Amino acid sequence: MASHKSKTTTTADGELADSLRPVMERTHSPRVIDARDVGARGLGLFRLDYDEALFQRNYKEPVLVARAGGVGAKLAIARAAGRWDTIGADLVAAYVNELICVGAEPLFFLPCLHGGELGPGPLAEIVKSIAEACTRAGCSLLDGDFATASPATPALSGFAVGVVERRRVLDGRHTRPGDVVIGLSSDGLHSQGLELARPVLDADELLRPTRLYAPGVLDVLGAYRVKRVVKAMAHIADGGLGGPWPAVLPEGLAVRLRRGSWDIPPIFQLLADRGGLDNIEMMNTFNMGVGFVMIVAPNFAKPVMARLRHHGERCGIIGKVVKGDGLEWA
Amino acid sequence: MASHKSKTTTTADGELADSLRPVMERTHSPRVIDARDVGARGLGLFRLDYDEALFQRNYKEPVLVARAGGVGAKLAIARAAGRWDTIGADLVAAYVNELICVGAEPLFFLPCLHGGELGPGPLAEIVKSIAEACTRAGCSLLDGDFATASPATPALSGFAVGVVERRRVLDGRHTRPGDVVIGLSSDGLHSQGLELARPVLDADELLRPTRLYAPGVLDVLGAYRVKRVVKAMAHIADGGLGGPWPAVLPEGLAVRLRRGSWDIPPIFQLLADRGGLDNIEMMNTFNMGVGFVMIVAPNFAKPVMARLRHHGERCGIIGKVVKGDGLEWA
Repeated sequence: MASHKSKTTTTADGELADSLRPVMERTHSPRVIDARDVGARGLGLFRLDYDEALFQRNYKEPVLVARAGGVGAKLAIARAAGRWDTIGADLVAAYVNELICVGAEPLFFLPCLHGGELGPGPLAEIVKSIAEACTRAGCSLLDGDFATASPATPALSGFAVGVVERRRVLDGRHTRPGDVVIGLSSDGLHSQGLELARPVLDADELLRPTRLYAPGVLDVLGAYRVKRVVKAMAHIADGGLGGPWPAVLPEGLAVRLRRGSWDIPPIFQLLADRGGLDNIEMMNTFNMGVGFVMIVAPNFAKPVMARLRHHGERCGIIGKVVKGDGLEWA
Repeated sequence: MASHKSKTTTTADGELADSLRPVMERTHSPRVIDARDVGARGLGLFRLDYDEALFQRNYKEPVLVARAGGVGAKLAIARAAGRWDTIGADLVAAYVNELICVGAEPLFFLPCLHGGELGPGPLAEIVKSIAEACTRAGCSLLDGDFATASPATPALSGFAVGVVERRRVLDGRHTRPGDVVIGLSSDGLHSQGLELARPVLDADELLRPTRLYAPGVLDVLGAYRVKRVVKAMAHIADGGLGGPWPAVLPEGLAVRLRRGSWDIPPIFQLLADRGGLDNIEMMNTFNMGVGFVMIVAPNFAKPVMARLRHHGERCGIIGKVVKGDGLEWA
């Protein structure tokens, strides 16, 4: 309806949004409804079920899973370095990685980009980087909010929405002693400890985007829909590699990580030396080379890792589930 | 699962989020799943269908409707005035008002609040204001992203998600000449033209939150589910009262607004006088006293307005649909 008359817009921000539209539209699945067709510029419309063979009634009892978050320290670093091609991908990966931890299929992503004094060039680079990550995550980049005229300093936030069948919500309740912990390699710091790292590392290292684990992890989840193979997952984010365990483990269970079972990248030793942080502080701040963890039934560790490697993940068994509380070391 | 062990968190931002949790939880419908139960701090989980008499299989072909946006100029004004009790409500209303325009039921809202140098007091006031507006909008305030330590200046954005049955998406296609335009009174400027108004109006006027039209509008939509009574709706936002018409009208139709059919609040005359803006500039910037418009079948204008007034809306017929293009004046 409304015959796309609203394509022509009178505001500078509307023009910017229009110029970014082709990049965003390339990410759209057939489940996206063009908001202009319903006279609703700026809205994202997404069909949960899609009436084609592949998608028909995917969900009996759908649970929507949503994550909002912003880019803080990384945006300041990008500004200082004048480099805009990575923070968009970082934003998408950071939050899509959270959605998949509960078993959700990523559906769509909305950016909120207040440019402040940034010109259209950097904004376009950010959106392109967001779009590329959305394509890899299998989610559609829907109309967000683009404001250039605001007097505020630049602000970038984003919202990821996914869906999971209610009885498949991965809540960790089937985790048992003997389950193994598979660690997936990170791409540098991701978004943690940037303020501590800023005096030590160069901008290119600080700006490396969070690795997106969706392709491999979703393939594993899809391959083992019926069997209880994947028990729990965690994206290693705030709180570092030491952080996620109490939340993802049932009471009375701990994870015992084995020292030396994965290579800690040299940047973390550099950060420990220069930053004067002890092992525990390092572990509770940084990912230490492991950006995502999966707790799986021991018999399935090999085929799960084979599948992950097929998607380019470097991974290995870094520990196991034991009776206890939280995190132990071996 | 995970028995809420994750309630105790080690980061300052986690503590802040925990302290805000009771305020947020009061907004939760039974459709909200506690993310801590699935070991997923910071995620929002929301059951689209709820297996109780009232909610059972509400949607045959659900379309998710999402809107992201930030608070720009209003945040700067709030900082200058040290007043934090209105911008949260403004954020919710601005974007929930957009969702309902396509007929969507608001489901949930996620805030993204990077506090910069703001203390916990202002952050708590903002979240309280968001929560109150969510309650009035009938949507649940889910876990957002709260970061205090970022060196950036404060940034506030939000993300609203709703749902509408696909065949009920309000796309304006049934609009006909003779349909009437009902205007609903605004509460001041809402979020438009704030930079222009800042030298003229005081902070309290500039910070009045956008009026939330959800209660009355959703009641009208619910009352006329079968009949084609409501043809199209628009939230008067960027582009002012002159702005929304091409997008919401089918090709070949215009809206003819009748001068003098509503009272233009004195602040707009003040802004015209002091700002040196002509009528057209005023109309394409400000809401001119009309914050939301509904295009309805003429025979139903009276009962629709009665229903809106029951919810405290001041409203009246301000124009009608004619053959033409865009906006005309009578």
